[in-house]
Amino acid sequence: MSTGENLPLGFRYAATYAGIRKVEKDDVALIVSDTLASAAAVFTKNRVVAGPVTVAKRNLRVSRGRMQAILANAGNANCATPTAEAVALASVRVAGEALGIAPHCVLPASTGVIGVELDAGRIAGVLPKLKAALDTGPFDAAAAAILTTDTRSKTAFAQVKGVRLAGMAKGSGMIHPRMATTLAFVMTDAVAPPAVLRTALKQAIERSFNRISVDGDTSTNDTVAVLANGASKITPSAKGFGEALAEVLASLAQQIVKDGEGARKFVTIEVRGAPTDRAAEKIARSIANSPLVKTAIAGSDPNWGRILSAAGNAGVAFNPQQADIDMQGIAVCRGGFASDFSEDVLKKKLDAPECSIQFTLRGRGRGQTRFWTCDLTEEYIRINASYRT
Amino acid sequence: MSTGENLPLGFRYAATYAGIRKVEKDDVALIVSDTLASAAAVFTKNRVVAGPVTVAKRNLRVSRGRMQAILANAGNANCATPTAEAVALASVRVAGEALGIAPHCVLPASTGVIGVELDAGRIAGVLPKLKAALDTGPFDAAAAAILTTDTRSKTAFAQVKGVRLAGMAKGSGMIHPRMATTLAFVMTDAVAPPAVLRTALKQAIERSFNRISVDGDTSTNDTVAVLANGASKITPSAKGFGEALAEVLASLAQQIVKDGEGARKFVTIEVRGAPTDRAAEKIARSIANSPLVKTAIAGSDPNWGRILSAAGNAGVAFNPQQADIDMQGIAVCRGGFASDFSEDVLKKKLDAPECSIQFTLRGRGRGQTRFWTCDLTEEYIRINASYRT
Repeated sequence: MSTGENLPLGFRYAATYAGIRKVEKDDVALIVSDTLASAAAVFTKNRVVAGPVTVAKRNLRVSRGRMQAILANAGNANCATPTAEAVALASVRVAGEALGIAPHCVLPASTGVIGVELDAGRIAGVLPKLKAALDTGPFDAAAAAILTTDTRSKTAFAQVKGVRLAGMAKGSGMIHPRMATTLAFVMTDAVAPPAVLRTALKQAIERSFNRISVDGDTSTNDTVAVLANGASKITPSAKGFGEALAEVLASLAQQIVKDGEGARKFVTIEVRGAPTDRAAEKIARSIANSPLVKTAIAGSDPNWGRILSAAGNAGVAFNPQQADIDMQGIAVCRGGFASDFSEDVLKKKLDAPECSIQFTLRGRGRGQTRFWTCDLTEEYIRINASYRT
Repeated sequence: MSTGENLPLGFRYAATYAGIRKVEKDDVALIVSDTLASAAAVFTKNRVVAGPVTVAKRNLRVSRGRMQAILANAGNANCATPTAEAVALASVRVAGEALGIAPHCVLPASTGVIGVELDAGRIAGVLPKLKAALDTGPFDAAAAAILTTDTRSKTAFAQVKGVRLAGMAKGSGMIHPRMATTLAFVMTDAVAPPAVLRTALKQAIERSFNRISVDGDTSTNDTVAVLANGASKITPSAKGFGEALAEVLASLAQQIVKDGEGARKFVTIEVRGAPTDRAAEKIARSIANSPLVKTAIAGSDPNWGRILSAAGNAGVAFNPQQADIDMQGIAVCRGGFASDFSEDVLKKKLDAPECSIQFTLRGRGRGQTRFWTCDLTEEYIRINASYRT
């Protein structure tokens, strides 16, 4: 939960219901900085991109990385419709008019069903109300308004040398960020030029959103944006700020995995001894995306053969006889072969809500990574097989 | 079912229970040609390979593509154990002795749990019994002995100009063949030198086993082998034989998908208008492996946005506004946008046991492919989350 102390200075928030989602629950969030803020963002690498992604990219270019507001809606992805881009443009235009700022200083974002027209009038209709409601208080309301199949809000806070960071995210399914992810917004009152922000974001993303997977599907709307408005008048060191940003983003990314559709267990996969960090990531991703590994975890089955097999499919050359695997800190495989462990003991340990898998290659490789995923349960199927979630 | 007429001449079969699997059900199959046969095989591309795969590859090399027997067991993959290769070697040696043929003319294959020692004595112990039982009759018994989580046998037959082909396969989960697949054996009495057989197999695989997916996991034991013993004394044309082989392998591959773990629906994905056949395959594979597409099919949800999004993740450059999608022959997306279709009508059509998805890119691309997969149901989770299936 947010409190006055952990919110960055100079940002205000509002949320309301605009009738975009069927159930009456806030579906539009507005985040406004008192002054023009430095901004950096990363977006989905899907070839199919939503209207707001196209407009957000252009706005960042036109404004040279200066934004003053984020306008986000849930319930409709505003993607794969003839009007997607026009609706996103209309939304930033009316938001700019209402707030008295340039339209290209508004970053739009949407999430929800793909291929259904979004009525721009719904957002325009609630803008006066949103503007009037702007305050520091509704941070949590804004974080709630961007959720879809999520079962809980995802927020994270950090401080570094008097500078505050506050982040919010949504995401539960279609989670397989590559270079970007689902929606996440981080506000900070640090003084940081756009170039510094971009570098910090790029590095932090590689240790957070680019290291999680729920189901291996990459969304069309993935957007992670950071706004730094300098209201603290403090310029933190690039290193200190980068660490704080990575901390916030890693927390949000892990919250997304923990709230993965149908997930009951949070799984941390650590890979060490790979030829390169990139190779380590490939191995971790292959293990994280294997339905057979994920269902074994769901069933508390110490079936390490599936982990070894998934690693073998990663497209990384390694000698299986150099592979060691640990689950919950217990050696299950040494040099590619079974260790002498008690299946009953490990099975009980795997009933825990947090599970760890360590995959280590003996030898001189120094590549390593940490990756987060969740188990795959029948509930994931129930959620996604239901008609037009 | 096999009958005397559709079985190739000069092959005999046997199956028995050797105590490898827990339930008392045949778990060893022996296939023997009366004479040395031409042989070709493709194997898993997983970096982790089972002992029998290593030995089978070496035997094919040493014998220069001449085999006389296939020895396969279910219930244990003979993979990722210190003795895996030694056990596979011992098995082909005792089989060779029993049959009076060179050990390197026996092709071994295993399927089952990974990482548990296989007792070579169990196979050696049943070889006299297997040899005594060899006959043309037990073809179906051999096909049943190689099954694991499969719910039914997979066999296929073809004839071309007096030459007979008979195939058997197993496979239900861990199905994502890349250049190879699960276990499948095809026997033919055609006269065909190893080189001709290799070419025909390579081409047929690309239209069958390399175009299916159940869960995106590639096994450590995948083996498809063809034996041609020439007993018919007929040398079919390379083209005719290739077509017949492709027909048998496509049937077996489709039977594997239809028996996919938990599968209720068989899905055919056709991609057309891609820049190249390879690009078409990538798009089809991305659609086939998307859990969100597979769960939507399970729920009879005409959620074409997930299909478009999955195609966008294939790593193929295309303009989404040139994308047309049809489900069950009904236009659901034209030029990247929703078509005007009745969701209720299509939802009912998607309740059928066979579903079709057509993804077409407008323009001058001539790349195309056909790919088969199944829906993803709660039953898949139940099967794979259960302790050590």
